[in-house]
Amino acid sequence: MASGEFSLIETFFNRPTGRSDIILGIGDDCALVAPPAQQYLALSIDTLVAGVHFFPDTNPQGLGHKALAVNLSDLAASGAKPAWCSLALTLPQIDEAWLGEFSAGFFALAAQHDIALIGGDTTQGPLAITVQVIGTIPEGEALLRSGAKPNDLIYVSGPIGNAGLGLLGRQGSLFIEDPALYAALETPNPRVALGQALLGMANACIDISDGLAADLCHILERSQVGADIEWDRLPLSKPVRKFIDCSGDLGFPLRAGDDYELCFTVSPKHQEDVERMFRQLNLDGACIGRIESKPGLRIRTGSGLIDLVKSGYEHFKPS
Amino acid sequence: MASGEFSLIETFFNRPTGRSDIILGIGDDCALVAPPAQQYLALSIDTLVAGVHFFPDTNPQGLGHKALAVNLSDLAASGAKPAWCSLALTLPQIDEAWLGEFSAGFFALAAQHDIALIGGDTTQGPLAITVQVIGTIPEGEALLRSGAKPNDLIYVSGPIGNAGLGLLGRQGSLFIEDPALYAALETPNPRVALGQALLGMANACIDISDGLAADLCHILERSQVGADIEWDRLPLSKPVRKFIDCSGDLGFPLRAGDDYELCFTVSPKHQEDVERMFRQLNLDGACIGRIESKPGLRIRTGSGLIDLVKSGYEHFKPS
Repeated sequence: MASGEFSLIETFFNRPTGRSDIILGIGDDCALVAPPAQQYLALSIDTLVAGVHFFPDTNPQGLGHKALAVNLSDLAASGAKPAWCSLALTLPQIDEAWLGEFSAGFFALAAQHDIALIGGDTTQGPLAITVQVIGTIPEGEALLRSGAKPNDLIYVSGPIGNAGLGLLGRQGSLFIEDPALYAALETPNPRVALGQALLGMANACIDISDGLAADLCHILERSQVGADIEWDRLPLSKPVRKFIDCSGDLGFPLRAGDDYELCFTVSPKHQEDVERMFRQLNLDGACIGRIESKPGLRIRTGSGLIDLVKSGYEHFKPS
Repeated sequence: MASGEFSLIETFFNRPTGRSDIILGIGDDCALVAPPAQQYLALSIDTLVAGVHFFPDTNPQGLGHKALAVNLSDLAASGAKPAWCSLALTLPQIDEAWLGEFSAGFFALAAQHDIALIGGDTTQGPLAITVQVIGTIPEGEALLRSGAKPNDLIYVSGPIGNAGLGLLGRQGSLFIEDPALYAALETPNPRVALGQALLGMANACIDISDGLAADLCHILERSQVGADIEWDRLPLSKPVRKFIDCSGDLGFPLRAGDDYELCFTVSPKHQEDVERMFRQLNLDGACIGRIESKPGLRIRTGSGLIDLVKSGYEHFKPS
């Protein structure tokens, strides 16, 4: 859609922004921005593909939200302040109603986080959405996966498993009415303010996209440490507790993805700071365990350790 | 491919770079870079979709080259110096031989232009490649589409229509043996050095991706000017001349896309500078006409004006 591309981007995606650091937005070969002094840039790119990451009939407004949210969540995990983004949209055909809703969802979330869309590409093909985000972060302060230390407390910023239950509902595997579970799946809230508040405090941080166990393991591997998690301390919503009671699947909240909460570790001296921060930001976060020098991830319940391989997480299968 | 993704990116795409401005490359939630002082950042994103932008059986090494080349060409058109890039790769399945060749083509071109891959995402789905590039440019010096002035000379940096002939060959519409025509289509050379050399000299610049007429029209519209082009001065290769002689299709080099030469305008006082630059960079560029204050694009031949609508360019059809 070479010649249609131009007007498409102009019509739906070229909106005024309040950012004074944008020299040139959509409409030339490149966008131009002025980066702030003494800051690093944090960059992340993610693609959502129809039929893989979302159902092709997903509400386009939610999809616009989620495509940006999963990228903002990466900025949050680094402690970066969102600044600019680009959108590469591949569409089977030009559907103006779809584009109107998609862009509404995208821009509503962008406005919340003061991130400006500065460039894009629209191509014809199977529905897929790639977003690149750029944020800023004071030099040397970024949160990494690699900084966890033995004795650190491990926190999760909010309930896990809600998006996973929403997915079971959408797949038709489970009868689910609660709109909050679908909202957790389709319009997650990236923890951007928390990420920035954790600068100078958290030793390691990651966002939970692939499931708590898999994502925490990235921290453990990069930091060359292990972790001891108390299952009973996992922050779980009532519907997730009920689902686990009925199914007996204690591994569910460990492997359920798409919640986009942050998992981070802090020195015990920051315990009160973190809890105050949770209250200020109105987050239902919890301390779930502790970093240990012994490698590996151990999940304790009242009756012993959970076997992560048996609990169905393929990440833990021997390769 | 959540759990495979990590190792895939690590294996094929995490390579050491010589750039000291990369604080953290592939492997965390975000990459971190240190932008240079007193420079703007130039950003562009482009997607290539199998079956739309390339044949699904295209040589993967060429594809790796082209996915980066089309983005470097946007940096070239702005006069930016390439710095960092991200790659979002959607693949039907993990094919290690394909990935090896794709990454070889990608990194060979990246090394030529000192651009470092700092982040990526690998997802499962219909084959598509999105690349985001970032370059740097001294504050206030970027080349724009909007700066062309009446009386400016219009230049093209090299022969046009070669990639278009290569495409006719690949489509089976024409029997073509000349490997140079396929190379023009599949491994274009972005004019990055020329773009930077034009800073402070060119008044407007664009890269030729959609065809000379369509792309020059973007300059004319943004600059609110017109242009008078002499068809006889278009830089054409022997095979393109021969094709036009046989087909009688004078519009072919005006609408043929994918050449990724630069089209730019300069004040007549810079004529000798531009021609010296072409010699230094070993480019077969040519002055093809002049900017005029009267709006519209006029293409003159010995026997009168070419009618761009009749010559088949849909961009010029009344909408």
